[in-house]
Amino acid sequence: MKYPESLQELIDSFMLLPGIGPKTAERLAYHVLLKLNEDQVKKFSDSIKKAYLNVKKCPICGNLTDKDICDICKDETREATIMVVESSKDINAFEKTKQYSGKYHVLNGLISPINGMGPQDININNLFDRIENEKITKIIIATSATIAGEMTAMYIKNILEEKNIEVYRIGYGLPAGGDIEYADDVTLLKSLEGMKKL
Amino acid sequence: MKYPESLQELIDSFMLLPGIGPKTAERLAYHVLLKLNEDQVKKFSDSIKKAYLNVKKCPICGNLTDKDICDICKDETREATIMVVESSKDINAFEKTKQYSGKYHVLNGLISPINGMGPQDININNLFDRIENEKITKIIIATSATIAGEMTAMYIKNILEEKNIEVYRIGYGLPAGGDIEYADDVTLLKSLEGMKKL
Repeated sequence: MKYPESLQELIDSFMLLPGIGPKTAERLAYHVLLKLNEDQVKKFSDSIKKAYLNVKKCPICGNLTDKDICDICKDETREATIMVVESSKDINAFEKTKQYSGKYHVLNGLISPINGMGPQDININNLFDRIENEKITKIIIATSATIAGEMTAMYIKNILEEKNIEVYRIGYGLPAGGDIEYADDVTLLKSLEGMKKL
Repeated sequence: MKYPESLQELIDSFMLLPGIGPKTAERLAYHVLLKLNEDQVKKFSDSIKKAYLNVKKCPICGNLTDKDICDICKDETREATIMVVESSKDINAFEKTKQYSGKYHVLNGLISPINGMGPQDININNLFDRIENEKITKIIIATSATIAGEMTAMYIKNILEEKNIEVYRIGYGLPAGGDIEYADDVTLLKSLEGMKKL
């Protein structure tokens, strides 16, 4: 027996998503058919198209927005600091801390020669234009502590070296609640490099 | 910062699905916006509505189908045996073995007083009508080896006891590739009950 065609199409659609294999896709499709009501199904279907049509990258910082320019770029009270992040999900994470009041720049990727990603493949040239245009004095590089994250950080630092701009990298080390016993070597090395006098 | 409204709606939609929390929903929504092309997005959105509208339960066996009566019920070459399963996903699993050529009956649930599920809440009365209508001589109960699965099996067996019908339960025991060391007590008990002379 094969599934009815339109059920199979729904299963195939779910399989386009990351981390969703045939079994999970099957389970999700069954849930849609058997557990959701008509209103929820309509909303689900519409929200996919609507989000795809409405949400674009901000032409200034690369953050996702449904306006011409994103709320953060529009906000004139923000400090002349740019935090460079890999994805706009990271913006959300930092905004939740309520401790940062500068702007952001979303690379939408990282430099990673092994994956064929060079500086031209990510939203990075725009960053250097912004530094002039927005009179930025401080850059905080908040890419992840991976090879690609470090490489991207070094690339930005090398280009900005000659300009009169402070370049920071966020602190790395043991995460809150982290157990030294289970921490990997790189994390522990970073925690030693980043030690502070009490 | 909050997400753009239509992105938030998409995230909320994904959170309607089982096993998908806020973080995964975020990741899936970003994937739809940033990695899928327009054609895939349209197909995804349409497949949800289309499957919901087209796929119904077969009025005879309860299997999901996009026709008036499902392919298996329509197939006159099938034997006069009914395998009783919990969900139409189980049909697919048994059909893949290519070793069973009877019909099916999908309960779409199990009797489980603890969850407030009685015989009237599942597709079970229809089963007894089918036995007369389709001149069924053999019933195989293939519900899972859980309390609700066993309870449902006993309920069906008790009702069919007076009729001249063979009632079988599928075999339970150690799964293929299963390690005795890691098998639970119930599985081992079932494997002892189900032992065969070599």
